[in-house]
Amino acid sequence: MSPRPAPPAVVLVSGGMDSAVTLAEARAAGFAPRALSFDYGQRHAVELEAARRLAEVGGALEHRIVRLDLSALGGSALTDAGIAVPLDRPDAEIGAGVPATYVPARNTVFLAVALGWAETLGARDLFCGVNAVDTSGYPDCRPEFLRAFEALAAVATAAGGERGERFRVHAPLLALDKAAIVLRAEALGVDLALTHTCYAPSRDVQGVLACGRCDACRLRLRGFAAAGRTDPIRYARA
Amino acid sequence: MSPRPAPPAVVLVSGGMDSAVTLAEARAAGFAPRALSFDYGQRHAVELEAARRLAEVGGALEHRIVRLDLSALGGSALTDAGIAVPLDRPDAEIGAGVPATYVPARNTVFLAVALGWAETLGARDLFCGVNAVDTSGYPDCRPEFLRAFEALAAVATAAGGERGERFRVHAPLLALDKAAIVLRAEALGVDLALTHTCYAPSRDVQGVLACGRCDACRLRLRGFAAAGRTDPIRYARA
Repeated sequence: MSPRPAPPAVVLVSGGMDSAVTLAEARAAGFAPRALSFDYGQRHAVELEAARRLAEVGGALEHRIVRLDLSALGGSALTDAGIAVPLDRPDAEIGAGVPATYVPARNTVFLAVALGWAETLGARDLFCGVNAVDTSGYPDCRPEFLRAFEALAAVATAAGGERGERFRVHAPLLALDKAAIVLRAEALGVDLALTHTCYAPSRDVQGVLACGRCDACRLRLRGFAAAGRTDPIRYARA
Repeated sequence: MSPRPAPPAVVLVSGGMDSAVTLAEARAAGFAPRALSFDYGQRHAVELEAARRLAEVGGALEHRIVRLDLSALGGSALTDAGIAVPLDRPDAEIGAGVPATYVPARNTVFLAVALGWAETLGARDLFCGVNAVDTSGYPDCRPEFLRAFEALAAVATAAGGERGERFRVHAPLLALDKAAIVLRAEALGVDLALTHTCYAPSRDVQGVLACGRCDACRLRLRGFAAAGRTDPIRYARA
């Protein structure tokens, strides 16, 4: 008797820490992951380089990058050059309310495309890296959102509609903060040196430098500090 | 006292008959419509020319075209060059089951992007042209799907999440067949000569020719015949 082949799963891989660990969680849970990334007019396209490395190193069977130009819609500091990425915000403001870097309906769009690919692949499992830090600031990262998306998927697809099959949206980091994610990466053997987080990166001759000042960098650095670990990536300021 | 300004609405405009009439319905219902189209790697990019004309003539305050390359995901005759558009199918097969031209999760993706733009605009109303013909073949065109999407929108957005506002997905053609849509176009003054429907169009020196043989052409032609009207567009064969 041959072993049952690993079922396929579509994993959203942005290139950040969260998605790197999520990809590892999908493999650890016995899935054969396919990595999906978006080129969505984000300023930090260096994310996509990180996503490519992570998909390769993380054992994704395929990596697809879907071009989706959300900058046509405006409204976010990540896609609209007219809105500045906030730097050096007071600690208390980080993670409170909806930040300027919120891209309207981004996760809804990303999961919808993931659902389309899942349907083509015959996959019934989607993985995304939303976690306890995101859920405080981004509305489309909360558990209610994930359950509502599963309900939508059940009626949105040929598989769900005709055959009554369920799709599951897995968010293995949902209850974790950044410190816990750093430790989980260590446990799963994920090399966080390959990940990219910064909203305002620069480059020097050796490669990419994170700014250390945007909300994303500061949440990341706080996570490493709280976990008692040193962040392996390079920062423009210490 | 000045009259209350018309509330904004985002209308999905593909360039076909259904979306042309839907745009007119949105205006007739008192909304200030914004037209949203997708350049999604479809073979029939001539649709987008039609969408541009319709948005302009139909009184849309803005028209945005979002590039979204779903061809990276494959799986549909409309985006995957390896799958043929079916021509000359037996009448009984047209409109039965999920057709080869189904793009996985397409409407989910389109509505998700529309939701993002609506949030940026402060709009709470989305319009799409799904109708009684689509609902028989495409899973993501059914009323259950539209209600599930509204439930998702309520938890997916900053507006829904923080302020408890509801989004509505209007499908004014939901109960109409193609003949009823032809007559509704006439009543609303929509010029169907500007619309494009064909999945396999060609060109001659005078412009675009519809094939008359794909499912979309045949449903359209049947609709005109049943309404007792003549289709004003040109076909490669009569």
